[in-house]
Amino acid sequence: MDKSNNYILLIEDNEDDIELTQLAFKENKFANRIKVIMDGENALNFLLRKEGNREMDSIGRPTFILLDINLPKVDGLEILEHIKKDPHIKHIPVVMLTTSKQDEDILKSYELGANSFVRKPVNYQDFVKVINNLGIYWLAINQSPGDSL
Amino acid sequence: MDKSNNYILLIEDNEDDIELTQLAFKENKFANRIKVIMDGENALNFLLRKEGNREMDSIGRPTFILLDINLPKVDGLEILEHIKKDPHIKHIPVVMLTTSKQDEDILKSYELGANSFVRKPVNYQDFVKVINNLGIYWLAINQSPGDSL
Repeated sequence: MDKSNNYILLIEDNEDDIELTQLAFKENKFANRIKVIMDGENALNFLLRKEGNREMDSIGRPTFILLDINLPKVDGLEILEHIKKDPHIKHIPVVMLTTSKQDEDILKSYELGANSFVRKPVNYQDFVKVINNLGIYWLAINQSPGDSL
Repeated sequence: MDKSNNYILLIEDNEDDIELTQLAFKENKFANRIKVIMDGENALNFLLRKEGNREMDSIGRPTFILLDINLPKVDGLEILEHIKKDPHIKHIPVVMLTTSKQDEDILKSYELGANSFVRKPVNYQDFVKVINNLGIYWLAINQSPGDSL
């Protein structure tokens, strides 16, 4: 990856969901790369550049982040809170993408500054459609702040 | 309007842009009603229920807000700031929809808690496409917090 700010960060521990998301992006012909981080601790190290993790300095910030709620070690809501408190990365759009149907998760997500909250459809065809619209929206229609912040 | 939480709030002073947005929603067959407020002061009175304005108590909160930046009396960024500081309405998704191409407007919008920033396409067909994707995204894919907050 170069510093083109042209990748999506997927923070997700479920291997089936990762594969499904990657497949859906592929089916929709999005050329953007997807960087996957599978646990909350590694996600925080990457995003906050902790524990000597300087990867984001070289590859740039993601265009947007897809963030699951139930994650090992540090959960998605805690990661969201860290992102939205960090002046260096708080402007990156964060879309919660989760199987959670709990109203309190929706409310808490917006409370902590999530840009959007999307439920994962169970049916694969529906999932592809959601990823299609979501991908077009956050990649082509929404204006993310550039990497020059 | 009943309290079905099923309308879009468009805060926009330019009559051509209002008509264009309404037409684009109509062309895309969105059944949701659009409530238009044409200046910043009236928008604040409606949203913050000031100056005896209790309309939102009876019609409920909008599903999402489309907010222009350049508005008479109170500009869009100031309105955004008020929305995101008010515990009663801060969870409503706010999409900035503007002709502004200035990076500082994008940055400032995210800084103040905008959920999304979209540039109005100049070409009508492009505008319809953008409204189509935007409408599906915020009405059908994104989960807004209910009106039962």
